[in-house]
Amino acid sequence: MITLDLALPDTRYPIHIGQQLLDKADLLLPHIRHRKVALISNTSVAPLYLAPLRQTLERAGVEVIPVILPDGEDFKTWETLNLIFDALLQHRCERNTTLIALGGGVIGDMVGFAAACYQRGAPFIQIPTTLLAQVDSSVGGKTAINHPLGKNMIGAFYQPRAVIADMDLLDTLPARELSAGLAEVIKYGLLGNAEFIGWLEQHIAALRNKDKTALAHAVQTSCAMKADIVSQDEKEQGVRALLNLGHTFGHAIEAGLGFGTWLHGEAVGAGMLLAAEASRLIGNLTESDVQRVRHLLELAGLPTISPDLGVETWLELMSHDKKVSGGEIRFVLLQSLGQAYVAPLPQQILHELFTGRFIEKA
Amino acid sequence: MITLDLALPDTRYPIHIGQQLLDKADLLLPHIRHRKVALISNTSVAPLYLAPLRQTLERAGVEVIPVILPDGEDFKTWETLNLIFDALLQHRCERNTTLIALGGGVIGDMVGFAAACYQRGAPFIQIPTTLLAQVDSSVGGKTAINHPLGKNMIGAFYQPRAVIADMDLLDTLPARELSAGLAEVIKYGLLGNAEFIGWLEQHIAALRNKDKTALAHAVQTSCAMKADIVSQDEKEQGVRALLNLGHTFGHAIEAGLGFGTWLHGEAVGAGMLLAAEASRLIGNLTESDVQRVRHLLELAGLPTISPDLGVETWLELMSHDKKVSGGEIRFVLLQSLGQAYVAPLPQQILHELFTGRFIEKA
Repeated sequence: MITLDLALPDTRYPIHIGQQLLDKADLLLPHIRHRKVALISNTSVAPLYLAPLRQTLERAGVEVIPVILPDGEDFKTWETLNLIFDALLQHRCERNTTLIALGGGVIGDMVGFAAACYQRGAPFIQIPTTLLAQVDSSVGGKTAINHPLGKNMIGAFYQPRAVIADMDLLDTLPARELSAGLAEVIKYGLLGNAEFIGWLEQHIAALRNKDKTALAHAVQTSCAMKADIVSQDEKEQGVRALLNLGHTFGHAIEAGLGFGTWLHGEAVGAGMLLAAEASRLIGNLTESDVQRVRHLLELAGLPTISPDLGVETWLELMSHDKKVSGGEIRFVLLQSLGQAYVAPLPQQILHELFTGRFIEKA
Repeated sequence: MITLDLALPDTRYPIHIGQQLLDKADLLLPHIRHRKVALISNTSVAPLYLAPLRQTLERAGVEVIPVILPDGEDFKTWETLNLIFDALLQHRCERNTTLIALGGGVIGDMVGFAAACYQRGAPFIQIPTTLLAQVDSSVGGKTAINHPLGKNMIGAFYQPRAVIADMDLLDTLPARELSAGLAEVIKYGLLGNAEFIGWLEQHIAALRNKDKTALAHAVQTSCAMKADIVSQDEKEQGVRALLNLGHTFGHAIEAGLGFGTWLHGEAVGAGMLLAAEASRLIGNLTESDVQRVRHLLELAGLPTISPDLGVETWLELMSHDKKVSGGEIRFVLLQSLGQAYVAPLPQQILHELFTGRFIEKA
């Protein structure tokens, strides 16, 4: 097991990365008060991993209140969030009762937001069960639910007390979701670590075969980069926006097709290729850089052609992005492979991009 | 105009107290980006004060998006909160669009919570229109909505950019609501300022007659005490709990009778007398101390006899209090008039209290 330490201005927390971590009560107990927790999962993950975790906790004398939510992005709503509040209040959970999020990004985001709001702030622990959640959504304290008019529009910056990333939980992860997680892993290479891009090109097959040593290295590298960025900019006033590489385009794809049609990681993957192509069109990247990004995404099993939403719809959907400032959409672009920055894009570049070669032909 | 400066570890903000403040654009403009605000009020307050404030802003070149919510504690719900999010998203408000709360405590709490959650945190300004909100809910960053199983159970600690307490807005405040606000003013005397208790005894008639000099002094003294306490303990880990004097009992009254039957301040007033009586029963206060509290509450036009909920129901309702820790209910008690502390109460004292002289006889 490797433990990263994420130090923020007001708090710090450990990110434990390894195997067989659900057995280790000592990773959880320091963050639990009054021997009682709410263990929140979904209908897909709970049958696989809730019982062993519950057993670990109960053996350590901790009362476990299980809360099982419906699974999927469609349920990342206030109504589902309220199921958590209902259970917490019915079981008289207190302001210092710890919530444990056992699931993917949707569970992590919702439980984190529930913890942020419950009695104005309860402690919580993230146990991400997807690669995407392990490398991305479980680290950094972004919590949220969706609104009919926009994804992740209602939320909070709220940090967990600990993150436990257990590679064994990826055994049951479907291949498509593993690929979606690899999109976020690739993102860390593209935005800030050229060397890691090379490592990924060499190990992408091992990662897709769930080689645990390779997975642990990918998770550790990604989390360490995210921890470094978040510790510089917890509230996304500056450098943290770089973590949104591919996301402005990706969110438009998700919203344009209807959330859940593409997985978030798939949309981010295709979105990163659009960001690379835009970076080429404005003269930052070479054609060979763009092809290298495209090839790596293909090796990871990710789509590289975005749907044809139409230029107007692309712009409309992106105008809801949280990075919009003064009405201007701001994009995460690549200066080179391994170096990102935030800037607006000229209209004609956007037009070229959304009618160009990485858009599906009718 | 007097300006108090509330300094917290991460932020600081001004509390402006005076008259004719809705005319002063310069109090608002430093906290507004991109010349656009959402001005959120309710159906009772908007007809009185929205137009003049809107005019001040529009004259200064600021686009105003008015959002008018239904009035009352019954509407302090997710559904109403969502009306704010709907309007913000429909009008493309950004993460840095300022929300202005124009109303009493319910509006302030809801708009503050909406600001805390909108795109994970938008700026907001409090313009409280009731005495209670001016002295209490607008200062200190507690924001929340109610849950069917408990008041203010879902919320956040989130600070405004500025508070504007304009005594002129109290001209239209009904007498019953003025009295309810005085309960919170009296609270500041009881919990930490014996001298202020004496001042209140002398000026209670002037306050009820809406003498603006007296009101401004009461608001200033209360806000300064609250600012001092909150700056020591923003997240209510310690001394801030003292601000809940009368509230554990008061919340039980509100919940037991159904929210809205008694005004919050009325319940807090009766609750403070119960806290004083409990403090006498355990030997802290004299009979004459208790009578002095009772007399001041009566002079303020507040009820002093609590409803007979039955001992079991009192205990049950209080067990949901956010100060409960390890199942134990903790009360704010008086060591003397002007000095408070937090402690549990023995069962027989609670029994005596809830069957005693300050409980309504059948």
